[in-house]
Amino acid sequence: MKQYASFQKYLENEYQGPFMATDIIIEYEQNGLEGIILIERKFPPYGVALPGGIAEKMTFAENAAKEAMEETGLTVIINEPYKPLCVLSNPSQDPRAFIASVAYVGRGYGKINPSKEEDAKRAFFVPLINLPEILEKNIWAFGHHKKILELYLDSKGVCYER
Amino acid sequence: MKQYASFQKYLENEYQGPFMATDIIIEYEQNGLEGIILIERKFPPYGVALPGGIAEKMTFAENAAKEAMEETGLTVIINEPYKPLCVLSNPSQDPRAFIASVAYVGRGYGKINPSKEEDAKRAFFVPLINLPEILEKNIWAFGHHKKILELYLDSKGVCYER
Repeated sequence: MKQYASFQKYLENEYQGPFMATDIIIEYEQNGLEGIILIERKFPPYGVALPGGIAEKMTFAENAAKEAMEETGLTVIINEPYKPLCVLSNPSQDPRAFIASVAYVGRGYGKINPSKEEDAKRAFFVPLINLPEILEKNIWAFGHHKKILELYLDSKGVCYER
Repeated sequence: MKQYASFQKYLENEYQGPFMATDIIIEYEQNGLEGIILIERKFPPYGVALPGGIAEKMTFAENAAKEAMEETGLTVIINEPYKPLCVLSNPSQDPRAFIASVAYVGRGYGKINPSKEEDAKRAFFVPLINLPEILEKNIWAFGHHKKILELYLDSKGVCYER
């Protein structure tokens, strides 16, 4: 609309971020164990990460479910679409650009099977009891994904050394 | 960094939003009454709104506190910087562009006194008991600010007709 033309021009030309990513903690059951799904990234920064990706033209919760499907093959029902687990927005958390993360928790259904065209080289199940140990390892593509998982463990009441 | 050049080019040239805004519910006490602060907008879309604005290069919580100071004159301590009250991201919620909102709750201290250069024409106190009635009025610049305030009233356990 014409009345917003100068504001839109500002956004198009001067907005320097934050660009937005959605990340998701997919709760999943395997062989009677409760756990979550992580991925191994196909593109830099390499390493282990939460399923997620840059926001497209839909709500963040829809974006999180779409990325989850693409990177893990699972259908995910997001717990609270309006109330994410956390929002992390330190301007230097992502080495690529000023990218903030809205992180959701959801329940995954189906068989783990990432799409070949997506960011994930593989997706794998981690039992919740093993997560504190895995958080200590030097395998993470993004430091803020560790922070998201720490906040998740706190929300579940899981005690662990940090 | 060179390894991210194509990704950064994608963000710069093809990212169409969501652009980000932070909004804040400032809890404030006046004459022994608990309430919140609203503003009247100086620029289109006109109407009543939560204090807030487009995200700049800092964390969202820092941005929310900065906008609060500019638009109301109050020093605001954000309750949970990592855990906003809600994130609303319907692509059509803002008439200007695809702008998503991260909404925080914080406690305001000081005297209400908006900066003259900012988006707010005036800032005013609304007792919590009057908020349900004000939500019904056709005065809001952004429909999603009503939704944020409904989620806030829910979080406070305030019952009201909708």
